[in-house]
Amino acid sequence: MPQYKAPLRDMQFVLHELLNVEEHYGKLPAFQESVGRELIDQYLEAAANFCEKELSPLNQVGDREGCTWNDGVVTTPTGFKEAYQKYIELGFPSLSAEEQYGGQGLPNSLGTVISEMVGTANWAWGMYPGLSHGAVRTLEHHGSKEQKETYLPKLVSGEWTGTMCLTESQAGSDLGIIRTKAEPQADGSYAITGEKIFISAGEHDMAENIVHIVLARLPGAPKGTKGISLFIVPKFNVNTDGSLGERNAVRCGSIEHKMGIHGNATCVINFDNAKGFLIGPENRGLNCMFTFMNTARIGTAVQGLSASEASFQGALTYAKDRLAMRSLSGPKAPEKEADPIIVHPAVRNMLLTQKAFAEGGRSLVYLLTLYADVVENAATEEERKFADNILSFLTPIAKAFLTETGYESANHGVQVFGGHGFISEHGMEQIVRDTRIACLYEGTTEIQALDLLGRKVLGTQGAMLKDFTKIIYKFTEANKDNAALQEFIEPLAALNKEWGDLTMQIGMRAMKNPEEVGAAAVDYLYFSGYVTLAYLWARMALVAQEQLASGSTEVDFYNAKVTTARFYFKKILPRVRSHVEVIATGVDPLMTLDAEHFAF
Amino acid sequence: MPQYKAPLRDMQFVLHELLNVEEHYGKLPAFQESVGRELIDQYLEAAANFCEKELSPLNQVGDREGCTWNDGVVTTPTGFKEAYQKYIELGFPSLSAEEQYGGQGLPNSLGTVISEMVGTANWAWGMYPGLSHGAVRTLEHHGSKEQKETYLPKLVSGEWTGTMCLTESQAGSDLGIIRTKAEPQADGSYAITGEKIFISAGEHDMAENIVHIVLARLPGAPKGTKGISLFIVPKFNVNTDGSLGERNAVRCGSIEHKMGIHGNATCVINFDNAKGFLIGPENRGLNCMFTFMNTARIGTAVQGLSASEASFQGALTYAKDRLAMRSLSGPKAPEKEADPIIVHPAVRNMLLTQKAFAEGGRSLVYLLTLYADVVENAATEEERKFADNILSFLTPIAKAFLTETGYESANHGVQVFGGHGFISEHGMEQIVRDTRIACLYEGTTEIQALDLLGRKVLGTQGAMLKDFTKIIYKFTEANKDNAALQEFIEPLAALNKEWGDLTMQIGMRAMKNPEEVGAAAVDYLYFSGYVTLAYLWARMALVAQEQLASGSTEVDFYNAKVTTARFYFKKILPRVRSHVEVIATGVDPLMTLDAEHFAF
Repeated sequence: MPQYKAPLRDMQFVLHELLNVEEHYGKLPAFQESVGRELIDQYLEAAANFCEKELSPLNQVGDREGCTWNDGVVTTPTGFKEAYQKYIELGFPSLSAEEQYGGQGLPNSLGTVISEMVGTANWAWGMYPGLSHGAVRTLEHHGSKEQKETYLPKLVSGEWTGTMCLTESQAGSDLGIIRTKAEPQADGSYAITGEKIFISAGEHDMAENIVHIVLARLPGAPKGTKGISLFIVPKFNVNTDGSLGERNAVRCGSIEHKMGIHGNATCVINFDNAKGFLIGPENRGLNCMFTFMNTARIGTAVQGLSASEASFQGALTYAKDRLAMRSLSGPKAPEKEADPIIVHPAVRNMLLTQKAFAEGGRSLVYLLTLYADVVENAATEEERKFADNILSFLTPIAKAFLTETGYESANHGVQVFGGHGFISEHGMEQIVRDTRIACLYEGTTEIQALDLLGRKVLGTQGAMLKDFTKIIYKFTEANKDNAALQEFIEPLAALNKEWGDLTMQIGMRAMKNPEEVGAAAVDYLYFSGYVTLAYLWARMALVAQEQLASGSTEVDFYNAKVTTARFYFKKILPRVRSHVEVIATGVDPLMTLDAEHFAF
Repeated sequence: MPQYKAPLRDMQFVLHELLNVEEHYGKLPAFQESVGRELIDQYLEAAANFCEKELSPLNQVGDREGCTWNDGVVTTPTGFKEAYQKYIELGFPSLSAEEQYGGQGLPNSLGTVISEMVGTANWAWGMYPGLSHGAVRTLEHHGSKEQKETYLPKLVSGEWTGTMCLTESQAGSDLGIIRTKAEPQADGSYAITGEKIFISAGEHDMAENIVHIVLARLPGAPKGTKGISLFIVPKFNVNTDGSLGERNAVRCGSIEHKMGIHGNATCVINFDNAKGFLIGPENRGLNCMFTFMNTARIGTAVQGLSASEASFQGALTYAKDRLAMRSLSGPKAPEKEADPIIVHPAVRNMLLTQKAFAEGGRSLVYLLTLYADVVENAATEEERKFADNILSFLTPIAKAFLTETGYESANHGVQVFGGHGFISEHGMEQIVRDTRIACLYEGTTEIQALDLLGRKVLGTQGAMLKDFTKIIYKFTEANKDNAALQEFIEPLAALNKEWGDLTMQIGMRAMKNPEEVGAAAVDYLYFSGYVTLAYLWARMALVAQEQLASGSTEVDFYNAKVTTARFYFKKILPRVRSHVEVIATGVDPLMTLDAEHFAF
């Protein structure tokens, strides 16, 4: 199993050199006093140390042992509980929570950066605190004062964990058809009854209480998504003095046997007249959930980035070590019985693809999380609104594109290992299995694609797209006289223009037939993803070029950035051409076959 | 778990309507008397019945239980042994073996068609007889008369099974560096010592003896691939009367824990001065193995086709049943709470992709296996030579392209199921795990790509490519006045020409730098695969069109063929554009980064 090594140099490059986070925090009233480079780097190093030494060694253990269920009780793999205690002692759960509930009041973006390390070292483990984080943010945004006081301090400290209970067996992508019921009770609480599935961290032995955030329907609620309300349902009821009361009627009915993330318990949770408390207004549950869902989508984008990084680290080590055949241009290690496989162009192609997606994905995730900071902490409504638009636009791209490319990277990792990649002990196939879920949960790739093209792009008459392409336009204009950068600026400027043309083409067709949106959406999302990453790689090349010009001593590091940008533009970016061609063929080739005539 | 249903109608379409196998067998002296349509269809139905009723129900059992190892003894999953007994009783092992050793003397192509059903129903199980088949063919081609008489009857009947022992832990793609030794003994036998890994079906409880075919080095043999010899090493020595003698010094040291094909034992096999017998001439072992390797590559292409078919069957059933959201053009099942997901264009896109790869892949595999019949049974040397060239050219394409597209299909199958696709009980994720190995064993995709571009195409100065593009050219010329077929003929003719131009472009660059071959090979292979399948889809559309024109009553079946061909040309074939663009960027973007500067 590859031992995880936090790519601190690259993280610092993105944070400090590409995105200037110190300047970013300096503009946000909540952080301008408190968050400087020294503090950021201290947190990164502490997290790197914890992830490398505590979490990474448990990654394969978690996969092999999995969670076990016995009569409603779930036991996590060896070492998971102890690692969680250390995580609490180090203060990670409270990092970005509000100070009045025991949080450290640091930016969420810093939490996201740390979650990358946690997730790359051990994704299944990271989901336990990750889900808690979602519950905390939902309560921070939508809970009543009393609810916050009752639940937040223990969730923030990490003593309790949280879950998000949305899915039911018949209702996944389509939450409008959930059936779980909430009956009002005389004491102002609600009796919650129903079965939820796919509840990550829904039951476990790592914390003394679990706070479920549950979607359910009130009696007589409107059908569909406008009749769903949100509830808090604790595993143990909480007494007025904050101590744990009696066990609530919430039970883990079973855990799923699944392809990957074995270390995380994916639970069926049964509510049988469980005591629940309404969060936010009646029938507005899905609106309250949006806060969480956007955060969760960025969190899932991190899983894609993590898969690229983890599989890259594993494959790179192997490719430098494993010997097979001679280079086509003559022996490169004549003293050995064969050359290390990193000499072969096809192997390099896979490694560079992983590298381009890992480092490019990192820049996209960090960019997003800074926009999320602005949305929550901007000094002015105008800044907030602008950041919110960009964030809304980029979120489905980052979620779908980074998870799909992360899955691709994970598969390259297996491929570089050859037959050994298929063997569990090397850990490469685990990355494939763990990552496969990322393209499914928190909205499948197809759902993200519809969200992007249907809701964000066409639904705003292109306004959100224009906000972003304008940013790219400004960048290409500002650098159009930079001769050394033209290999990136020219194709980027052309694709940026094409993005608008392509959208117009689809929009025109969609006026005649709305199915055109569904037919084009996935290819449109890939196009958008490749161009977005091209923009970020061009920016990274510029930073590297400037550092080289100003006499940096890290010549190899910055040259590698420029080389990787070039690889991305030459070997990855041409993939847009197929997507453009496919979009042009429209919806007809998809819709003419009758459902009954697919097979005979 | 989806219950496998053999696609008999489609198999008959390919065999009888597309490829005219009766005519094909009629031209081969060995089969012209014996093999008619009635016999073929009888075998297909018997195999379908066995695969649907016996093998398919064991597929998930095999995955869940896996094989177990205890002190050198391997136990296969529940039911595997009993199913194998039935398989023997039904006479399948002897189908295509030589009659003098108890075989039925039927064409290998018929065996391949049956192996598709076996493999789609239960790939892990199918590898036990599949590996035996490889051993039988190696002995048929290269064994001495005595060796054939000693081993073939029991292997042909299925009482014994066989293996192919090639890989060692340090030597996979690069067999030139194997270390297993063979010391000549006074009695004419050899003492074999070494460790082989990844030996599929290397040890199990399904047969009383296992015949290992082993690559090893004689003392003083030349280095590299020209110093490797081939040996028979039985698990139990065989007495002169054919009865089993004492146990040979061959032992299964362990079995691998791996991503998929859990039901098949992947063994470490230790030879400790085991008694072995030379097959063929000294130091010519790799040449003897080529027979087996080509067959094994077609066999692995079948795995890709199987994955497309199995995942298509599962996803199609689910997509017609599962309800989620409404069609963008208005409700299609207003009486239900949501529409079946097959109404959504993105879902249809995935299903049609699986269908196009399954049915297209079937046509390619069957075409190949008919060429293999000709190579072995042609009436004239000229026919044999021509078929051998085409077969050599198409084999790496079929192996790599069908396994990669099979893996893609398997992933679409998971995706159609949404989150449920990740859950083991639905069986979709198993197809992904089982299929992943197909892109690795019998030569990785990258190895196949080098074989195609380096050895078959450039190594023959384009002669092999020309043989095949000439066939396509004749087809497009013959149909250039068929107006209804132009949507297929025109793009196919253009791509067929581009294939030659692209080859020329790479060839020119390769004269300056041989690394250009390695840089272009994988994209070239994909290009070749997409065009080859386009040719076959155009031919299938023509057959369907002719049937419709001649008043067939199976209007829906033939219309579906034309619609799927159209889907393939509009939605899949444009992928070649990206591969062409990437090839044009050459080797430089891959080679400039120093191996030590990939990460910091």
